[in-house]
Amino acid sequence: MISEKMKGYVKNSSAIRAMFEEGKKMAAIYGAENVYDFSLGNPNVPAPEEVAEAIRTILDTEDPVLVHGYMNNSGYEDVRGAVAASLNKRFGTAYEAKNILMTVGAAGGMNVFFKTLLNPGDEVVTVSPYFGEYRSYVGNYDGKLIAVPADAVTFQPDAAAIREAITERTRALILNSPNNPTGAVYTRESLVAVAEVLREAEEKYGQPIYLFSDEPYREIAYDGVEIPWMPSLYADTVVGYSYSKSLSLPGERIGYLVIPSEIEGFEDFIGAANTANRILGFVNAPSLMQRAVAKCLDCKTDVAYYDTNRKLLTGHLSATGFTFVKPDGAFYLWIKSPVADEKEFVRKAKEERILIVPGSSFGCAGWVRLAYCVAKETVEGALPGFTRLAEFYGLK
Amino acid sequence: MISEKMKGYVKNSSAIRAMFEEGKKMAAIYGAENVYDFSLGNPNVPAPEEVAEAIRTILDTEDPVLVHGYMNNSGYEDVRGAVAASLNKRFGTAYEAKNILMTVGAAGGMNVFFKTLLNPGDEVVTVSPYFGEYRSYVGNYDGKLIAVPADAVTFQPDAAAIREAITERTRALILNSPNNPTGAVYTRESLVAVAEVLREAEEKYGQPIYLFSDEPYREIAYDGVEIPWMPSLYADTVVGYSYSKSLSLPGERIGYLVIPSEIEGFEDFIGAANTANRILGFVNAPSLMQRAVAKCLDCKTDVAYYDTNRKLLTGHLSATGFTFVKPDGAFYLWIKSPVADEKEFVRKAKEERILIVPGSSFGCAGWVRLAYCVAKETVEGALPGFTRLAEFYGLK
Repeated sequence: MISEKMKGYVKNSSAIRAMFEEGKKMAAIYGAENVYDFSLGNPNVPAPEEVAEAIRTILDTEDPVLVHGYMNNSGYEDVRGAVAASLNKRFGTAYEAKNILMTVGAAGGMNVFFKTLLNPGDEVVTVSPYFGEYRSYVGNYDGKLIAVPADAVTFQPDAAAIREAITERTRALILNSPNNPTGAVYTRESLVAVAEVLREAEEKYGQPIYLFSDEPYREIAYDGVEIPWMPSLYADTVVGYSYSKSLSLPGERIGYLVIPSEIEGFEDFIGAANTANRILGFVNAPSLMQRAVAKCLDCKTDVAYYDTNRKLLTGHLSATGFTFVKPDGAFYLWIKSPVADEKEFVRKAKEERILIVPGSSFGCAGWVRLAYCVAKETVEGALPGFTRLAEFYGLK
Repeated sequence: MISEKMKGYVKNSSAIRAMFEEGKKMAAIYGAENVYDFSLGNPNVPAPEEVAEAIRTILDTEDPVLVHGYMNNSGYEDVRGAVAASLNKRFGTAYEAKNILMTVGAAGGMNVFFKTLLNPGDEVVTVSPYFGEYRSYVGNYDGKLIAVPADAVTFQPDAAAIREAITERTRALILNSPNNPTGAVYTRESLVAVAEVLREAEEKYGQPIYLFSDEPYREIAYDGVEIPWMPSLYADTVVGYSYSKSLSLPGERIGYLVIPSEIEGFEDFIGAANTANRILGFVNAPSLMQRAVAKCLDCKTDVAYYDTNRKLLTGHLSATGFTFVKPDGAFYLWIKSPVADEKEFVRKAKEERILIVPGSSFGCAGWVRLAYCVAKETVEGALPGFTRLAEFYGLK
């Protein structure tokens, strides 16, 4: 009954989501407080109170026909202008409303981007480990995702390896910093090197290679680490953003694309992207939420909350002998499995009622991802389990 | 820069939306009150006050981490259960939460349906005139839309013509009642005949042919006309619903699919549909709006508002000699163009600052669509223009 393509997708359906379902079942059995579920990037920090206040104000003062009605497929003109102005203030850019396309979250934005761009057989390069859904988003338009391993120690993008992977069929590169699943923040040095490779390749093949900078974690970074603004390093960059993490609104499906006027073929691109947003069935980003986030552009989520968990975990995992990547951003910890088959480690951790996701879901076996966007109590509760796992595997 | 497929879509991009943009420009020149914009199905009736009340209650009493967070890709269990219970009460069915998949509007739901079902080259039959976006939604998955003309007088579906159009590649039929663009409500008699044709074809080809019943206008019907519940007439029916019109929330992108347990391959279908919802980038229907509509299942939009416009228009168009389909539902009036080329009529109407959409946008030249989901004043303001148009064309 089901299309051939969907059969494949269902089979490979996200292990992360499967784990999430498993976590709910275990919580029902053992009690939620006795299950340490680090499987899903569902922020435990509530949305800032300003979001609820913004919604109340809108309901109290704005015309419901406007607030809940259709607008341009790309979003309300005033909302897009406000987003552009906010970016200009932060990054010294000169964006206007026309450069902003409000989307149904970052996932919606990426689908619009690939629908706009890809012919069947076109290639999209990304750096592994990578968010597993990229493969579906590219596959939806019959593109081919080419994963290039990050540096094996720093998990920074490897510009030389990216150069090798680019062919005449390459239409785009996806970069994601702060990174899911590693928590790495790509350095200016790494990014400049990648930009140089892309410019060379554009010249070599005589066609644009767009960089899709996937930035849902931009606001979640620690110790004042720099997160360069990619369009300032590489002209053919489209930025994808989401309020899922920065305002803890993942269920609301609200984000945007920044499509700078400087990208090659801007006018065609923006026209096609608007149309893609419509015909894919998004039509427009949810209207009330568009208006709400426009009132919360200076709000910040409580990064200190995540930082507390980060320090607790990294301190304990260091002390017990685990190897992991120092996370400078996002709320993920990328831990080396003490055994070659990380699925074995994931099963063993489950015996401690600790839920983590195998690295093979991110195209990188031998590692696991731990999402620490959870209550501090969950982290504290899990620490003895990690101690026992370290002992079991004879770490240190 | 743009994919070949998108070039085609952009070229054929919705004439309805183009007219909407045109209307905004004209409003800026002549003043909004002097432009009679009947181009877009953007309800002018505000959302019932209960919607704002429901949102306020949710913000005041529910946990923001739940309200704005991720949930199952198919939606909140309690919301889906409430929707199922509401349908059961109305239609004597026995749906459960598992039969409901909350979607990003009806457009999102249709994309999920076709992504789930179609292999490249598969055929989907619909009745013309039809909502032009169907062609894109089917084309997104490399399916082929086959349009079968409705009865030329009643605009009821023509079961015999549908029988002729079905082939071994036919995977689905789309029906839309109350109909956009004609305003016709399909009679029980018509629907029983179509169901019989589908059952025969299933037997003949030995495979399911799903009926997609597209029902965003279910709640907008006049004079107590019956709108049969399609799954009770044909087992392999999936219903697509949206709150865009029934609660005047088109910008919020909130609706659902009903996937009855009785459809062939139910378990596979629901699993694939959930996955499709995720990987197409919807992920889930907007979370706060899911919770809000669950509190408004018994709310009604002000159908009398539309009925006033309907009566004003049909009375005046009758009196001035226009031919049109008597609208029993939705808020569209399907008017025969007084000249063969209806685009000529649309241009002439624009001189009267009346904006209507050519029937060729709906696969049916020679007619035009007028959307009367507008202020009564807009209708009243347009009547003299229609009088002059009737005189110009020598009607009566």
